[in-house]
Amino acid sequence: MDVTVDGERLRADIEQNAEFGALDVEEGRGRTVLAGTDANRRAREFFVSRLEDAGLDVRVDAVGNVVGRLTPPSADPDAAPVAAGSHLDSVPAGGIFDGPLGVYGALEAVRAMQDAGVEPTRPVEVVSFTEEEGQRFADGLLGSSVATGRRPVEEALALEDADGVSLDTALDEIGFRGEGRVDAREWDAWVELHVEQSTRLESAGVPVGVVTDITGITHCHVTVEGEADHAGATPMADRTDALAAASEVVLDVERAARDAADRTGTAVGTVGSLDVTPNATNVVPGRVELGVDVRDVDYGTMNEVVDRTRDALDRVVAERGVETSFERPFDVEPVAMDERVRAASHEAAATAGLDAPDLHSGAAHDTMHVGRCTDVGMLFARSRDGVSHNPKEWTDWDDCAAAVRVLAGTLARLSR
Amino acid sequence: MDVTVDGERLRADIEQNAEFGALDVEEGRGRTVLAGTDANRRAREFFVSRLEDAGLDVRVDAVGNVVGRLTPPSADPDAAPVAAGSHLDSVPAGGIFDGPLGVYGALEAVRAMQDAGVEPTRPVEVVSFTEEEGQRFADGLLGSSVATGRRPVEEALALEDADGVSLDTALDEIGFRGEGRVDAREWDAWVELHVEQSTRLESAGVPVGVVTDITGITHCHVTVEGEADHAGATPMADRTDALAAASEVVLDVERAARDAADRTGTAVGTVGSLDVTPNATNVVPGRVELGVDVRDVDYGTMNEVVDRTRDALDRVVAERGVETSFERPFDVEPVAMDERVRAASHEAAATAGLDAPDLHSGAAHDTMHVGRCTDVGMLFARSRDGVSHNPKEWTDWDDCAAAVRVLAGTLARLSR
Repeated sequence: MDVTVDGERLRADIEQNAEFGALDVEEGRGRTVLAGTDANRRAREFFVSRLEDAGLDVRVDAVGNVVGRLTPPSADPDAAPVAAGSHLDSVPAGGIFDGPLGVYGALEAVRAMQDAGVEPTRPVEVVSFTEEEGQRFADGLLGSSVATGRRPVEEALALEDADGVSLDTALDEIGFRGEGRVDAREWDAWVELHVEQSTRLESAGVPVGVVTDITGITHCHVTVEGEADHAGATPMADRTDALAAASEVVLDVERAARDAADRTGTAVGTVGSLDVTPNATNVVPGRVELGVDVRDVDYGTMNEVVDRTRDALDRVVAERGVETSFERPFDVEPVAMDERVRAASHEAAATAGLDAPDLHSGAAHDTMHVGRCTDVGMLFARSRDGVSHNPKEWTDWDDCAAAVRVLAGTLARLSR
Repeated sequence: MDVTVDGERLRADIEQNAEFGALDVEEGRGRTVLAGTDANRRAREFFVSRLEDAGLDVRVDAVGNVVGRLTPPSADPDAAPVAAGSHLDSVPAGGIFDGPLGVYGALEAVRAMQDAGVEPTRPVEVVSFTEEEGQRFADGLLGSSVATGRRPVEEALALEDADGVSLDTALDEIGFRGEGRVDAREWDAWVELHVEQSTRLESAGVPVGVVTDITGITHCHVTVEGEADHAGATPMADRTDALAAASEVVLDVERAARDAADRTGTAVGTVGSLDVTPNATNVVPGRVELGVDVRDVDYGTMNEVVDRTRDALDRVVAERGVETSFERPFDVEPVAMDERVRAASHEAAATAGLDAPDLHSGAAHDTMHVGRCTDVGMLFARSRDGVSHNPKEWTDWDDCAAAVRVLAGTLARLSR
């Protein structure tokens, strides 16, 4: 069952969506669409209109998740639906595909199934989750955390942005504070199409891949306390230099992650942020804060990298006399995609004459949450140079169409 | 010749000066007196009044350096004067002694000489240099850089603060944009009393020390350019992590400085500032800027530490594929204090029954500039815990008086 899609219709939707929060940039196409902003309102309103154009019933839940449901005559309206989608919010100065390709790809897949006369036995839903990027209200994956019961609605609505505006207020102001809660546990299956954000498909010379696993993600917040002293008047032997100690930790995290990657091929560890106090050339650093990111498809391997990070802290305490603190404020275990969903995607790709290799996702997606309550799968579309979260993010329109063709074939199989 | 000083009169001046820009702090006594601000105006006006109270002739030059000159009947008015002083500006939230002790100490020394009936054959000058701390307009030592001909008056006046206000305008607004230029080359000798900002006198249990050398200071500005990539989607092997590379450089600077200090006992090297871009936990760092501070009493040793810093950069370029840049925007060679000034101080201390050990200065002082055009010396007063640039900076009043007694004896000897 090959469901051909209308690449121009898909492109028109994504290009229209790209106008909301559009940036005037020299290279590429950028947009800034933070959750609950006016740009987000316009993107949502256009999305709702396109769902309705395709004959879908639209519902908005309390945290602004938008769902369009198609219940064709062939379907049992009480059957558990098959759902697909992604998100419409972006990072500041993000690209135009990260999120929208999955949302409008799902809509185009549904339209293509209608055009092709596919007769699903289940309803099919097209979904846009709120605040996937976590740029305004939370750590990210907000809408899916509520839809999967991981976070209570009231807790999500009470989240505030840096100006003290709550999600509740922001959604109300843009007219997308709905009622109730989209419940992912009612779905029979979920599929998300996303740009790869890496170069494996580009290297392989193929437009689309099938995700096997999403790595778990741990964020650690580390502080190293030394003594801020005059850089001229404090002899080397009398110093407790927080930055020198922190530099050892940075290199140890890298070494631990490299060792783990040598074994698994997938582990990564990053000290992405480092803040020095007082951060003046002529003052011995007194305090350093580090943000550490650890990921792998294997949770045990993640914990090994975290353990080695803690070992490094113990060592600098013993050897350098600094004090340290360690927190693990964010920790999500790896999620494996489900075999039946992956199989449907591989069949769809093969039917379309496409070679769709298996690959893992090192980035987090709403599918991580959804995967804890139903069968899930993900498709990746080839990203130019692997660039994302940047106006230079790009996926060729032909690749978009090819990936959505596989998505449509996957949904057709899962809903039949 | 022992010149006893009036410790209460000295204390009253320093305490009055401490009111200008005073901070309400829980511990210690803080003040913020940036050059050319209203707090600085009030501090300057009080200083001028105290110079005049003591019968000194006051002059303000184009960059706001203030000089009070005493020409007693015993002195040849055309003889090269002996000068002493320091600065009245502070760092943000600085202490009350750093600078003012040297300014009001010099004034008290002159008053004490008058009281003691000392009959100098040379005029004696009490000096406050503008913008020693370099917090608003420049790298520091601004007034002395002009007074020593190192920097043209017009260049100094054109310096702007972060808001685009020039030194010229700021001084004019507070009524201290004078005329001409104090010329340190006309001085027969210069002496500066300052708080030690280190713990050697405290460890030795003595109130005052005689400075032998001021270390040279090099500031290096280093950038390390890698590639900002998604921390989840970029395999360890595909990264060019600017922070990991920079961490190696931090540790190499420390190692080089420790090796140098093992030989000389005085060398120090510090990476005091480090700024990461984009500095997000989930992004591989793309760029790091480092501020490096290298000091020693031996310029060759300083250059060795700088050379090893550059070697570290070459290595991370070769081994990690980063790009680096290196600048040395600030470089002052070490300055040795002059034997005849040091001898006068040691004699003065001995006459006062004080043991005043030799020690070097790791901090920069206006005396670095003055030392390039006349004979100079410095005295240090004991600092509690070596703390400075902080409201907790403290020198006991008895220590202030003892140090000024040695200063007065030094000036009496140099001017006789």
